[in-house]
Amino acid sequence: MKSDFDVLMQSKKLDAVLVLGNAENNPPMTYLTGGGHVSAATLIKKRGEPAVLFCNGMERDEAAKSGLKVRLYDEFPWQELLKKAGGDMALMSALRLKAIFIDLGVSGRVGLYGHTDLSSSFATLSNFQKIMPSVELIGETRENSLFMFAMETKDEAEVARIRQMGQVTTEVVRLTAEFLTGCAVGADEVLLNENGTALKLGEVKARINLWLAERGAVPSEGFIFSIGRDAGVPHSQGNPDDLMRLGQTIVFDIYPQEQGGGYFYDFTRTWSLGYATPETKKLYDQVQNVYNRVVENLDLNAKFKDYQALTCDLFEKDGHPTPRTHPASLEGYIHSLGHGVGLNIHERPWSGLTSSDDNLLKPGVVMTIEPGLYYPEQGMGFRIEDTYWVRPDGKIELLAEYSYDFVLTMKNWTSGK
Amino acid sequence: MKSDFDVLMQSKKLDAVLVLGNAENNPPMTYLTGGGHVSAATLIKKRGEPAVLFCNGMERDEAAKSGLKVRLYDEFPWQELLKKAGGDMALMSALRLKAIFIDLGVSGRVGLYGHTDLSSSFATLSNFQKIMPSVELIGETRENSLFMFAMETKDEAEVARIRQMGQVTTEVVRLTAEFLTGCAVGADEVLLNENGTALKLGEVKARINLWLAERGAVPSEGFIFSIGRDAGVPHSQGNPDDLMRLGQTIVFDIYPQEQGGGYFYDFTRTWSLGYATPETKKLYDQVQNVYNRVVENLDLNAKFKDYQALTCDLFEKDGHPTPRTHPASLEGYIHSLGHGVGLNIHERPWSGLTSSDDNLLKPGVVMTIEPGLYYPEQGMGFRIEDTYWVRPDGKIELLAEYSYDFVLTMKNWTSGK
Repeated sequence: MKSDFDVLMQSKKLDAVLVLGNAENNPPMTYLTGGGHVSAATLIKKRGEPAVLFCNGMERDEAAKSGLKVRLYDEFPWQELLKKAGGDMALMSALRLKAIFIDLGVSGRVGLYGHTDLSSSFATLSNFQKIMPSVELIGETRENSLFMFAMETKDEAEVARIRQMGQVTTEVVRLTAEFLTGCAVGADEVLLNENGTALKLGEVKARINLWLAERGAVPSEGFIFSIGRDAGVPHSQGNPDDLMRLGQTIVFDIYPQEQGGGYFYDFTRTWSLGYATPETKKLYDQVQNVYNRVVENLDLNAKFKDYQALTCDLFEKDGHPTPRTHPASLEGYIHSLGHGVGLNIHERPWSGLTSSDDNLLKPGVVMTIEPGLYYPEQGMGFRIEDTYWVRPDGKIELLAEYSYDFVLTMKNWTSGK
Repeated sequence: MKSDFDVLMQSKKLDAVLVLGNAENNPPMTYLTGGGHVSAATLIKKRGEPAVLFCNGMERDEAAKSGLKVRLYDEFPWQELLKKAGGDMALMSALRLKAIFIDLGVSGRVGLYGHTDLSSSFATLSNFQKIMPSVELIGETRENSLFMFAMETKDEAEVARIRQMGQVTTEVVRLTAEFLTGCAVGADEVLLNENGTALKLGEVKARINLWLAERGAVPSEGFIFSIGRDAGVPHSQGNPDDLMRLGQTIVFDIYPQEQGGGYFYDFTRTWSLGYATPETKKLYDQVQNVYNRVVENLDLNAKFKDYQALTCDLFEKDGHPTPRTHPASLEGYIHSLGHGVGLNIHERPWSGLTSSDDNLLKPGVVMTIEPGLYYPEQGMGFRIEDTYWVRPDGKIELLAEYSYDFVLTMKNWTSGK
């Protein structure tokens, strides 16, 4: 949680953090600034002190909205620094960073963060390491970084924003289901547009994008709406030219984000329009059974990976390959059970079998539960996913409710037709 | 241009390029892959050879859409590598990268690119440098990077996509003007919603977002719609609670991008609703005069910064501070004249007074022309911006036309009222 930030810095023996990049679409920067249109910013926070945000003069008003102390790069005129650097832009940036560090009295171990341009940052920081050896720059793997630990537990204001995205998500899913089930059905059980042409998957996706935009959400990392074989490949986003046919599995995985790179929600349903084949019905029921068993057993402070193990147990009993029995399989249950959700669509806690024991369902955690089965060669895939919050009182709460119906009844079609 | 890539690599003495990160919202990766939902990818291109894209098995179908050779990380099982790394994830990633480099026969000078997570990349690459000293990793400042030079000139397919975004842009600007001029005007010359409440700037922005989404564009870096004092701060995006009042300058700077992090268009108009004060009319005319003078004088293969100098000449004659006379001023003409536009909203060529002489209006360049004047303390700002293409035949073409009217006539209001 944000309030733990200094304690976490202490536990990682960091004297300061340095965050580079834009304020938007940059989770560590957004976390500390609240977002806003500040580009090419430099945020420095010494342990136990408030953060200072450096920006260009043109963006001072946007930067001020962060509530942080704002200072301008102009205090360290780049023209002079560039002369000192002999015209070398990377060295100029390094000299400016050094001047800022000296001004703020930063030294020791400095954690390095930001979603930003790697090439120029690497050039600047390689120079910086040479000209300011008193500072040790620390990179961290994403899974174990300071920010991942801080972000792992959310305060109520953050949960309110995620819940609001959950509201948007389920509204858009409902609109999608209403639209699909209202379509006429033509030859070969293909859904039709009002003008009688075959409805294409890309047309459905365009509507979904619009419904999201109307509600202030962006499909920033896209979304998955896939049918048939594509539904059997977990991250295949779907082919825009595919037709929507009855009796095929549709995986709809939607993870909208607040505009400007804010909080996400994560949600999946699997549908079969009109009817389901016995084979898909059987597998869907297995996925739903696993989902229910996991959710019923969620416990405060339990290890997240224990539920991945439970999921493997259950799917293996049903005869499916799992990451435990077939680590590189492209069929069966082939991913992990869930992940934290926040400013990153995937963040701590992790549920992989080999994830560390400290990935716990602690109070403040917001995480997905998303078992699935995939058989691309048989043209089918299944996943059910919801986002849950481990509340401060220890109860585990579903953040947005939505039906688990697999077969969606077509309003203008009956199987006898 | 993409076809120059190997030659540019040669001129930079790069034996290979390494691009890290997602395929979307990552200009260097999008440039070489065409986009698509591939996360945490590794692209390696040796000079004179086609690029190879490494990804996770789940995303193989999305990766295949790139048309590149796709290989899976699973060829180098991370479990074994993690054991070899003694459980150190950053070292594991470095070992995997080394295995990939050895497999592909990569050595020598390797340029490093990608818009990605700095902390984990820095951790991986710091380890990598220790375990594979035969490779020298090269970071480049953004302004002078290989990709900036390659992207600087566009092929016809790229220009078609930018032109299409220009079409979307001017449609949305027209809808915005129609909406505003159709509003009723209430007390204090404030625009009203249909229900009689005062129209807020945030409500106008929400409509703009929707109109963009309907056309397949995203306001990925936001847009500027600001009035009064905010219009006088070039990058202030506007306060959502501001009211829309007649006779005030509105700066509307809109730079939509294809969904998923594709090509941008860049465009600005300045409006005054109903009427203009003599002071704002005078300054707008000065900006428009400068814009016209610059555009009339654009020449094939001219230095872009020569037009910045011309702009300063003209504005100084009108008595305004410029970057040449007052480098840190927050009033007057306070930015540079334009910039290249492509997969980055700002890219080569640069027009700053100190930009290098090789920033030329070469065939294939797509660039903005955007003179402006800013007087925040007097509550006003002005900018006119269009995007131009230097065609292969040497003609310089405006990519999307739109009126330069400053005063927008209100349909339901007359000054006598």
